[in-house]
Amino acid sequence: MRTVSKDTVTQSFLDYISEDSDERLKFVMEKLAHHLHDFVRETNLTHDEWRKGLELLFAAGEISTPERNEFVLFSDVLGLSSLVDMVNSSEDGTPSSVLGPFHVLGAPDVPVGGDLIKDNVGDKIVVGGRVLTTDGKPIKGAHLEIWQTADNGLYSGQDEQQEEYNFRARMTTDADGRYLFSTVRPAPYTVPDDGPVGELLRATGRHPWRPSHLHFIVTAEGQKTLVTEVFPSDDPYLDEDAVFGVREKLIMEYEKRESTDGLPDDLAIKGELDGTFYVVDFDFVLSAA
Amino acid sequence: MRTVSKDTVTQSFLDYISEDSDERLKFVMEKLAHHLHDFVRETNLTHDEWRKGLELLFAAGEISTPERNEFVLFSDVLGLSSLVDMVNSSEDGTPSSVLGPFHVLGAPDVPVGGDLIKDNVGDKIVVGGRVLTTDGKPIKGAHLEIWQTADNGLYSGQDEQQEEYNFRARMTTDADGRYLFSTVRPAPYTVPDDGPVGELLRATGRHPWRPSHLHFIVTAEGQKTLVTEVFPSDDPYLDEDAVFGVREKLIMEYEKRESTDGLPDDLAIKGELDGTFYVVDFDFVLSAA
Repeated sequence: MRTVSKDTVTQSFLDYISEDSDERLKFVMEKLAHHLHDFVRETNLTHDEWRKGLELLFAAGEISTPERNEFVLFSDVLGLSSLVDMVNSSEDGTPSSVLGPFHVLGAPDVPVGGDLIKDNVGDKIVVGGRVLTTDGKPIKGAHLEIWQTADNGLYSGQDEQQEEYNFRARMTTDADGRYLFSTVRPAPYTVPDDGPVGELLRATGRHPWRPSHLHFIVTAEGQKTLVTEVFPSDDPYLDEDAVFGVREKLIMEYEKRESTDGLPDDLAIKGELDGTFYVVDFDFVLSAA
Repeated sequence: MRTVSKDTVTQSFLDYISEDSDERLKFVMEKLAHHLHDFVRETNLTHDEWRKGLELLFAAGEISTPERNEFVLFSDVLGLSSLVDMVNSSEDGTPSSVLGPFHVLGAPDVPVGGDLIKDNVGDKIVVGGRVLTTDGKPIKGAHLEIWQTADNGLYSGQDEQQEEYNFRARMTTDADGRYLFSTVRPAPYTVPDDGPVGELLRATGRHPWRPSHLHFIVTAEGQKTLVTEVFPSDDPYLDEDAVFGVREKLIMEYEKRESTDGLPDDLAIKGELDGTFYVVDFDFVLSAA
């Protein structure tokens, strides 16, 4: 160690790690040190730049709460959260996508065909489809957790005008593996940009917008849990999601209908659908656990 | 972006960065994204590991204050702080080393030959030498800031038993470029290990000890500022500094003396030196600005 240099410091770091340490931890720390050290060597990072990076992390610590975690947000806008989703995503099922910070436990059970619109305003949509195995077999009794923004781009919990579990539900698929609910079109929104993440976005000329989306967590016995989001095909931010959550297979088409068309049998919606509404047909494929 | 995959996400990230952004910032962000993304891809980082990393950062935010900055400490124990020092260090001067968190402004001016021992306990040492240009020319009027721990391994500011500027001084070199002071041998100490950095050290079987050292900031007109540390050659932690600060050229030899030997002319020490003491001769070489 008394001979440590910029070329030997990585090996010195590795030599410090006890051989008794967990093998996976050793591997992850080795890769982390290699990449962080190479980053400094390849950029010849200056003291000012190093201090700036540490200031951003310190500021992230100051602004973070369990509800607004700026470190998660850094991970999101750097593409890391999304990349972790992708390296862990099944090849053969529906792709996963970012969980985000707005999931809460305790949403009410809503039956298949249930209504989330209630007295909310916005474009009415009917979202339905099936939960399937990779062999295409419907899964009865799969559980979906569903959450989304209101028409104003805010989630319940962020918005005092909304009831506690507004646009949040838990649903169990029927014998045909079907889920179905009426809701309103969610709205695009910005990630919080009043902290150090916002500073980074502005410095690199980036905007903080996410395309609108519906969040889902889909679970079923014997299958891998799927955490994902589904995006409307006409969203203006579809090609520039600030947190890199969009996947081709997660894009849903909105089919326009008028209520005078009458509802098809598979839209056994309990809510009222007067005038124009949109229909989304989206299946979730769960890979085996 | 709707086709983002684990192989294309890095390019998507780069495409987001505005062409108008600062060139250096673009370069640094490109390298950062490449290395962070490769880290995730090469480890197939799991969601649990990703969450653990974010938890450590969140915990670092919670424990950090301006005085105890856990992010700096993470940078230190990962070898990053030291590596930034090394990539920015002059090839031809005395190597730089970590500033650490214990530097304070406002230390008293002490004349060449001054005494820092006062009524402190510990092995007495006399530290002196010259401040030189890379051509070996002495620099008159160079300023040294000096700080170190007491014999108990604590800095003034950490230890209520010590006066405000105990073992802290500012000195200006004489016409021969000389500095000289009497002090006590500093002591090894541990970096704070009661937070997430300590958790990481324990998980990888590492100890938190630093070898004892004297801190110096050396400045002179027309020369680059030198921030460094000097380590005694007999310190038990010399080969295993938790923050990778030791360089071969920063090791000082302690020469044992008895006061009955008489003090040589170049040790014009103003303090009393009864019995056994040690002498350190260490020159600082500043490269041109």
